[in-house]
Amino acid sequence: MRSVCVIGLGLIGGSVLRAAVGAGRTAWGATASDTDAEAAAASGFDIVPAADALRRAVADDALVVIAVPLTAIDTVLRQVAEFAPECLLTDVASVIADQPEAVGRYAPATRYVGGHPMAGTSASGWSASTAELFHGAAWVVTTDVDTDATAWRAAADLAIDCGAHVVPVPAGEHDAAVARISHLPHVLAAILAACGADGGPLAMALAAGSFGDGTRVMGTRPELVLAMCEGNRAALLEAVDDALGRLGAARGALASTGALRATVMAGHDGRASLEAHRATKATRVLVDLEDGDALEELSVIGADGGRVIGFDGTMAVAEVPTAD
Amino acid sequence: MRSVCVIGLGLIGGSVLRAAVGAGRTAWGATASDTDAEAAAASGFDIVPAADALRRAVADDALVVIAVPLTAIDTVLRQVAEFAPECLLTDVASVIADQPEAVGRYAPATRYVGGHPMAGTSASGWSASTAELFHGAAWVVTTDVDTDATAWRAAADLAIDCGAHVVPVPAGEHDAAVARISHLPHVLAAILAACGADGGPLAMALAAGSFGDGTRVMGTRPELVLAMCEGNRAALLEAVDDALGRLGAARGALASTGALRATVMAGHDGRASLEAHRATKATRVLVDLEDGDALEELSVIGADGGRVIGFDGTMAVAEVPTAD
Repeated sequence: MRSVCVIGLGLIGGSVLRAAVGAGRTAWGATASDTDAEAAAASGFDIVPAADALRRAVADDALVVIAVPLTAIDTVLRQVAEFAPECLLTDVASVIADQPEAVGRYAPATRYVGGHPMAGTSASGWSASTAELFHGAAWVVTTDVDTDATAWRAAADLAIDCGAHVVPVPAGEHDAAVARISHLPHVLAAILAACGADGGPLAMALAAGSFGDGTRVMGTRPELVLAMCEGNRAALLEAVDDALGRLGAARGALASTGALRATVMAGHDGRASLEAHRATKATRVLVDLEDGDALEELSVIGADGGRVIGFDGTMAVAEVPTAD
Repeated sequence: MRSVCVIGLGLIGGSVLRAAVGAGRTAWGATASDTDAEAAAASGFDIVPAADALRRAVADDALVVIAVPLTAIDTVLRQVAEFAPECLLTDVASVIADQPEAVGRYAPATRYVGGHPMAGTSASGWSASTAELFHGAAWVVTTDVDTDATAWRAAADLAIDCGAHVVPVPAGEHDAAVARISHLPHVLAAILAACGADGGPLAMALAAGSFGDGTRVMGTRPELVLAMCEGNRAALLEAVDDALGRLGAARGALASTGALRATVMAGHDGRASLEAHRATKATRVLVDLEDGDALEELSVIGADGGRVIGFDGTMAVAEVPTAD
């Protein structure tokens, strides 16, 4: 089992380190936060300065996982270029669009693959991390034309060891999808929370389930919401335009005929799509990673809503939703 | 304790009947649904034809509670006018705007007060009803200039007996507030669900907490969502315009500078308003219902986010959030 070097030990990085050790891997970490470093060391984890962590990654051919806030990534990439210039590299950033570019600029010789576990809580820091955070979660591992197959397998193996399943998808498609199911929900929750609060104390006194559910993610720290939404600007803009068009149509229908059927039925069908996806049966498919077009095959599986659930030698074991 | 006659025995009406009997009141019900009637009778409740139920309400000076779907209200009001033309009358409809008009047209001699318990589940019918549905919930009892004080007290007493607290507010202010905290959340959830599903199987495979929370209410039966949203057309239009303006501003900021800070901070503050309301301390206030301006006093308490939590003789015991 490949060893793992985690840079950044907040909620996600800390959980990766815990899960990797829990899976029996050799793993160590580094963080710029003294608080997180002390807490992690006190819990018995192997915490060292970043330069040492990266040098050890070279010696051990480890997978390096960058799990620092988006604003600190460039700094860490410079350290990677200095101490582990050709390492296997992945990240856990919620927005991948600019990542390959930054890697290309600061650490061009690394074998990089983008990663994004779809898990989290509104809490943050090492103290919030758990080895179980990724259990049952989707973990995107990107499959672009220039993706290094060894890096892909290394990152996907780690995701599986963390209890997640792997969704293989090119970075651009990931960004478009998460704009719709993660970033747009935050924007609409912000709009709803503001409109509700404009109703004054009476509105807050009457608020029940629908307003509570619809605004829950606005309890998250604004900096985190801003970093992920602003970081996915182009794809989010498209999703917001879609929402604006639909909300404008609802407005028009309400003003002219008073009928919201088209809006509500589309919403009902959309929610049904989510529930259908979760209830759907899946067919098992094997993809030989030694095939030259393996990553393309995996991308098709990802686009169809499929996932990789494990490995058998060089074969990726995937599940693809069954059309019926 | 005043007896209670419930017309309509679905989720809300059934729960009112159960809670009224549970509070030790004499209560009986009627419903046009054979399924609900048989199930309620089998549970030991006193179920009779609507005409008989209303005649008994006259004999017993009972409070009549209309709990039928919005589309059936006119029919029931005609029955009320025929069999109990001067009864104490309230309802549990989620939209009150048109209700006084319909009462004025079909049953003008009744002593009517609007009611709206802010409780519910996505399930429906007698089989979903429980005596505990209203525990801890807000229950609007309207306080318009022409509201009959006896009817107000009767409806508020029932709400308290059902385990709810009473929010006293004129019908128009109720409609404006629920447009923002109940109907707009449904419209935005519909928009979000449709935009998400447009992302295809990949988006559904990646959907996690924020999309799940933001679209949950779209699991509700579309007819129920349509009835309440379309029934509150004027107030909802204003709320949708507010949301459109805010979403347009977010779109503009994202397109021009890429900055969403204003949107996200307003949303964060809005959610904080909700949490602050729930955590706030309250001062106890007494309102003598025999005062000529008691309903006006109560309206002010409602507008300030306050509530009536019980009665002591002719005094309403209210709690008003403490500014600090």
